[in-house]
Amino acid sequence: MSTQIRTVTVLGAGVLGSQIAYQSAFKGFPVTVYDIDDDALAAARKRFDKLVATYRAEVPGGADGAAEAALDRLTLTTDLGQAAADADLIVEAVPEILELKRQTYQELAALAPAKTLFATNSSSLLPSDLKDATGRPDRFLAMHFANKIWFSNLAEVMGTSETDPKVFQEVVAFAEAIGMVPIEIHKEKAGYVLNTLLVPFLRAALELVAGGYAQPGDVDNTWRIGTGAPAGPFQIYDVIGLRTPYNIMVHGDDEAQQLAAWLKKNYIDKGKLGLESGQGFYKYT
Amino acid sequence: MSTQIRTVTVLGAGVLGSQIAYQSAFKGFPVTVYDIDDDALAAARKRFDKLVATYRAEVPGGADGAAEAALDRLTLTTDLGQAAADADLIVEAVPEILELKRQTYQELAALAPAKTLFATNSSSLLPSDLKDATGRPDRFLAMHFANKIWFSNLAEVMGTSETDPKVFQEVVAFAEAIGMVPIEIHKEKAGYVLNTLLVPFLRAALELVAGGYAQPGDVDNTWRIGTGAPAGPFQIYDVIGLRTPYNIMVHGDDEAQQLAAWLKKNYIDKGKLGLESGQGFYKYT
Repeated sequence: MSTQIRTVTVLGAGVLGSQIAYQSAFKGFPVTVYDIDDDALAAARKRFDKLVATYRAEVPGGADGAAEAALDRLTLTTDLGQAAADADLIVEAVPEILELKRQTYQELAALAPAKTLFATNSSSLLPSDLKDATGRPDRFLAMHFANKIWFSNLAEVMGTSETDPKVFQEVVAFAEAIGMVPIEIHKEKAGYVLNTLLVPFLRAALELVAGGYAQPGDVDNTWRIGTGAPAGPFQIYDVIGLRTPYNIMVHGDDEAQQLAAWLKKNYIDKGKLGLESGQGFYKYT
Repeated sequence: MSTQIRTVTVLGAGVLGSQIAYQSAFKGFPVTVYDIDDDALAAARKRFDKLVATYRAEVPGGADGAAEAALDRLTLTTDLGQAAADADLIVEAVPEILELKRQTYQELAALAPAKTLFATNSSSLLPSDLKDATGRPDRFLAMHFANKIWFSNLAEVMGTSETDPKVFQEVVAFAEAIGMVPIEIHKEKAGYVLNTLLVPFLRAALELVAGGYAQPGDVDNTWRIGTGAPAGPFQIYDVIGLRTPYNIMVHGDDEAQQLAAWLKKNYIDKGKLGLESGQGFYKYT
């Protein structure tokens, strides 16, 4: 299935936004990247330079100038009108603040041509939370990427009940065109597929350790040996960073809140935040 | 840590019992294998012959006659008194029927010397359910193996509050001596570690499919790509066989019972039982 989409705009050049933009450009699409001011765009340029180095070294087809050539297909702007003017698809990756996203869509609704499809990369909001602000709920859905898009090449595509099925399939085709494996989600689900699986799995693992049943290393050994997975749940915690599951559990049921408190006391308050902090359930050097 | 255990007896030569006995013999232990009658022992001999072929082909150190030599360390008997007479460790792998296991332990209590440690391989019962029948709760615990012991070399070791810590460590050492990775579980937990992780993970996956959110193949793709695992949850369902998770869920809460009913209607009633039946969530040829 080939995509009808020719021009792409990405709103927000943070960690994921810059990856989505760069990956799309690497796969041949002209991409406009919007962020709020020149400082944000300067930070984006640094991210793109790092991505060039990563793609050159790690990504098939990234050598022999291909990684650098992708940069030529990126146009950076702080003008939302310019960013929206000719986009077939706008991927929104602005911060996870409901009102900020809604305001962005309200502005876009007036600026973007009628043809433009809107896709949110939101992790924690449902597209339903945003659809009425878009002015085009039939042409709006979620397309959710995982970090390290060049390696973990998932695009979870999830519409609302108002999303036109043709639009859904068009975005699925675009996801494929930029090298993703599209995951079709046919009804709205908080957490999409990946987090729907990860959350109860990681919680069960934490219950074992917080409850004094087993040590993290033994739990991870069990999962690796029992399922052949490369990493156990506590290795996954450390990669994600402990603050994210903490923030999920602290808003959960009583038992989840107890687990959150345990995680805070024994790890987060001690600066053990996971891989990036040098220590989480394991030490890193 | 080296083990003080010299002689091993395995009660019940079914799928797991025969694997435990053969693996122990392969690692150099003289093993007595008990089952109830000559037919059961004949079936056990066939299992051991298959294990010889598997170990010869797949297991490091299994070639050059080593797999065959393990057979010489196996003694088969239908005499429980003989089986118990000189055992340092008795591993009980009789069918998962509470009264049968309790009766077996009551007989063993009278037949086995005082030195003998008892370990149950029960998946679904807690050692607390059995300990008073053993006559020696301080020398009794669970040591739980996974299927395909030569490949999935886990031994989850779990005592009761009455298990002597020295006995616990002795059994951990034995597990290591027969090539297992011992998983120390310090408080009783139904499902040990592996099933404590697997059950909510598999349930979340089934909710996604039964609820119409996503297809099994997409859910599996998500897990494989998102975590690097070799198999997604529906591939794991097919390997386990769908009847086992069905039997767990049908005794669960309302939502679990609904999932069980869905699984029965759409798969089990259609003969789609998993890998062994040729079809489950996937078709096999």
